[in-house]
Amino acid sequence: MKVEVLAVGTELLLGQIVNSNAAEIGVRLADAGLDHHHQTVVGDNLGRIADAIRLATSRSDALIITGGIGPTQDDMTREALSEATSTALVFDERYADQLRAFWAARGRDMPESNLRQAYRPAGAEMIPNPKGTAPGLRMHVGNTWVFVLPGVPQEMLPMVDNDVIPFLQSVSGEERSVVVSRVLRTWGESESKIGELLGDLYDASLNPTVAFLASAGEIKVRLTAKAATEGDARGLIEPVEAEVRARLGTRVFATDADSVEAQLIRELVARKWTIGTAESATGGMVAARITAIPGASAAFRGSIVAYDAETKTTLLGVPAEVISRHGLVSEEVAAAMADGAASRLGVDVAIAVTGAAGPDEHDRSAAGTMVVAVHTPEGTQARTLKMPGDRERVRTYTTTSALHLARMAVTGLAWGR
Amino acid sequence: MKVEVLAVGTELLLGQIVNSNAAEIGVRLADAGLDHHHQTVVGDNLGRIADAIRLATSRSDALIITGGIGPTQDDMTREALSEATSTALVFDERYADQLRAFWAARGRDMPESNLRQAYRPAGAEMIPNPKGTAPGLRMHVGNTWVFVLPGVPQEMLPMVDNDVIPFLQSVSGEERSVVVSRVLRTWGESESKIGELLGDLYDASLNPTVAFLASAGEIKVRLTAKAATEGDARGLIEPVEAEVRARLGTRVFATDADSVEAQLIRELVARKWTIGTAESATGGMVAARITAIPGASAAFRGSIVAYDAETKTTLLGVPAEVISRHGLVSEEVAAAMADGAASRLGVDVAIAVTGAAGPDEHDRSAAGTMVVAVHTPEGTQARTLKMPGDRERVRTYTTTSALHLARMAVTGLAWGR
Repeated sequence: MKVEVLAVGTELLLGQIVNSNAAEIGVRLADAGLDHHHQTVVGDNLGRIADAIRLATSRSDALIITGGIGPTQDDMTREALSEATSTALVFDERYADQLRAFWAARGRDMPESNLRQAYRPAGAEMIPNPKGTAPGLRMHVGNTWVFVLPGVPQEMLPMVDNDVIPFLQSVSGEERSVVVSRVLRTWGESESKIGELLGDLYDASLNPTVAFLASAGEIKVRLTAKAATEGDARGLIEPVEAEVRARLGTRVFATDADSVEAQLIRELVARKWTIGTAESATGGMVAARITAIPGASAAFRGSIVAYDAETKTTLLGVPAEVISRHGLVSEEVAAAMADGAASRLGVDVAIAVTGAAGPDEHDRSAAGTMVVAVHTPEGTQARTLKMPGDRERVRTYTTTSALHLARMAVTGLAWGR
Repeated sequence: MKVEVLAVGTELLLGQIVNSNAAEIGVRLADAGLDHHHQTVVGDNLGRIADAIRLATSRSDALIITGGIGPTQDDMTREALSEATSTALVFDERYADQLRAFWAARGRDMPESNLRQAYRPAGAEMIPNPKGTAPGLRMHVGNTWVFVLPGVPQEMLPMVDNDVIPFLQSVSGEERSVVVSRVLRTWGESESKIGELLGDLYDASLNPTVAFLASAGEIKVRLTAKAATEGDARGLIEPVEAEVRARLGTRVFATDADSVEAQLIRELVARKWTIGTAESATGGMVAARITAIPGASAAFRGSIVAYDAETKTTLLGVPAEVISRHGLVSEEVAAAMADGAASRLGVDVAIAVTGAAGPDEHDRSAAGTMVVAVHTPEGTQARTLKMPGDRERVRTYTTTSALHLARMAVTGLAWGR
């Protein structure tokens, strides 16, 4: 089954945003074993959207369109689908009621223009959008299934996962096969080093295939197998996964969608330990990552962001003479912040971060010099990190590193070099 | 002059990389005043690349192709251009010499396979690639100028800047023109309401065009004008911008790349006020957004994340009886958190957030019920928000709202209903 992707939006053509939607859908089509030969972008122009729909429906078995279904006048994908298929737009009373209910639940009046979203070409079915107001559409055009989805990734991707892909797999006339992926998440080595360690597995990889993906300091190794049944696919993955694990050892910290912060909370809860953070350069990002996990309250108590020298002393009890002797960006200050947070917050484990996130140097330390300390009942360790890149990258990567160092300290793993 | 972009590479279809090349070229075409209506991606497949070239040369004045000109067997763009134009591939002895010299200068033997890069369709001219070995190509196909460039952005973009854009401008029959965009950022109204308020401007919009873009609770209004000079383009935008501002009033809070957090810091610095946060459900996200701004330290002092009831009392001084009487998710507790943070952090302005981020209810409040309070030297205000969506969306939108409510409180703007 050949599937293509059409993204609608002038902001894509102007380069104001990058078409990551098409890439995200591409990953999912590949995982589902569906062929994918074309991606197209057109602007908010009725004629060109309609032309693109005509071309795609002439050559592909399915077309996934993203964008152009918001409530404003420049959202024209519904009209273009209507024009390309010579089908009238009809008003869906049932969906209009859902829209009114959505707004009423927020205690607000719905602008009348929102009712644009309740129109659909006759013959198209509404696909529910659990994360937003614009429903998707599914329509059989000749021999091609056309899907219309919102451009907002947080709304669009769940609809691809839960609706579009299962539907395409169910109507696909091909030999049914399932694709199973296993993601081994690693931390502490570069992508090229992981690639070297697994080079021969990559070269030999057919089923399962081996792929590497870098994201914010972590390297994911993805094994993807295709077989008649899920059990068969898992059977193909198993020996390769065992070999990868044998070679990478404790660099592998989690599998699939598990995260370092979720794992950290589980390990703390298992020990009945509580946690807090003391942050300077990351400004609350470590606490924000931990509290993003539902149920974080089982271990997380609080955080103190102490941005200037004075606050580090008044709120965290870092002695002023430690700051003046070692500088704000030092392992001594980070350790004192962690110990101070443990005592002030009354927690067993405390993560502290100080540093120079950039763009300028901070208290005589170069931009990118970041220090993490972790206090546990067994003691306090500190580590200086040199982070490349801009302020955002430095803060994000340091946050990830701080969570990993805390996970290792809590579970008794050595930090290594 | 209509220009389109074709990116070649199976890795783009698989989503292993995002097509940022097309976005980068799009920015440059807009800056040069060249129209740009289509972007396409195809994989490393001779027939499909050739078809895409035929389609583009049938409808556009210029086609920029990126990728598929490396030295390996899966690099087929040269062959596809030859096939699409029914032109023989010829060996360019002069370029072969350049390739040999490039390798010799690095003291290495050139693999024979690299000589693939010295072939070009008869009639195509080589474009030098100062940053790599694969030369570009320029070829006049019917009425369309076709450019073939490497896929590596660091090689491709200088060729676009130094060769393709100046060439297209020189052959363009049109008056030279520039495109200027102005983005007005709004907060506090839905996209559909903004669309209604500006409906007639949108309908009449030709030059400048009017477009709407929603992102994390803010709605952007983009005005884009095309004219002979930058001054003329700005002159076209000016009256429309004035009309948009007159209708939207204080809903417009910033222009272009400016952000609410940057503006908040500027307003604080202008008043010599300092700021801190007291966060529960957002777990540090408000502080993280503020400290993402370089120079935040001019106003930001610190933050206290108090996740459980006890910490709200010990760290922020919220009286236990206020908590037990009104519940953790209440305007009374939020206000006490803001006042407590102002006093404990020693700041003029404090933002407090409490709430039930979900997925479960929290202390008898439904998921999505969030409360923001802002303390300023003029007093403390609190506001209860009903946020739809999952935990991540609730936290992100609440963070944006909290920053806006603080900006309004600091600048003396009423919060409205």
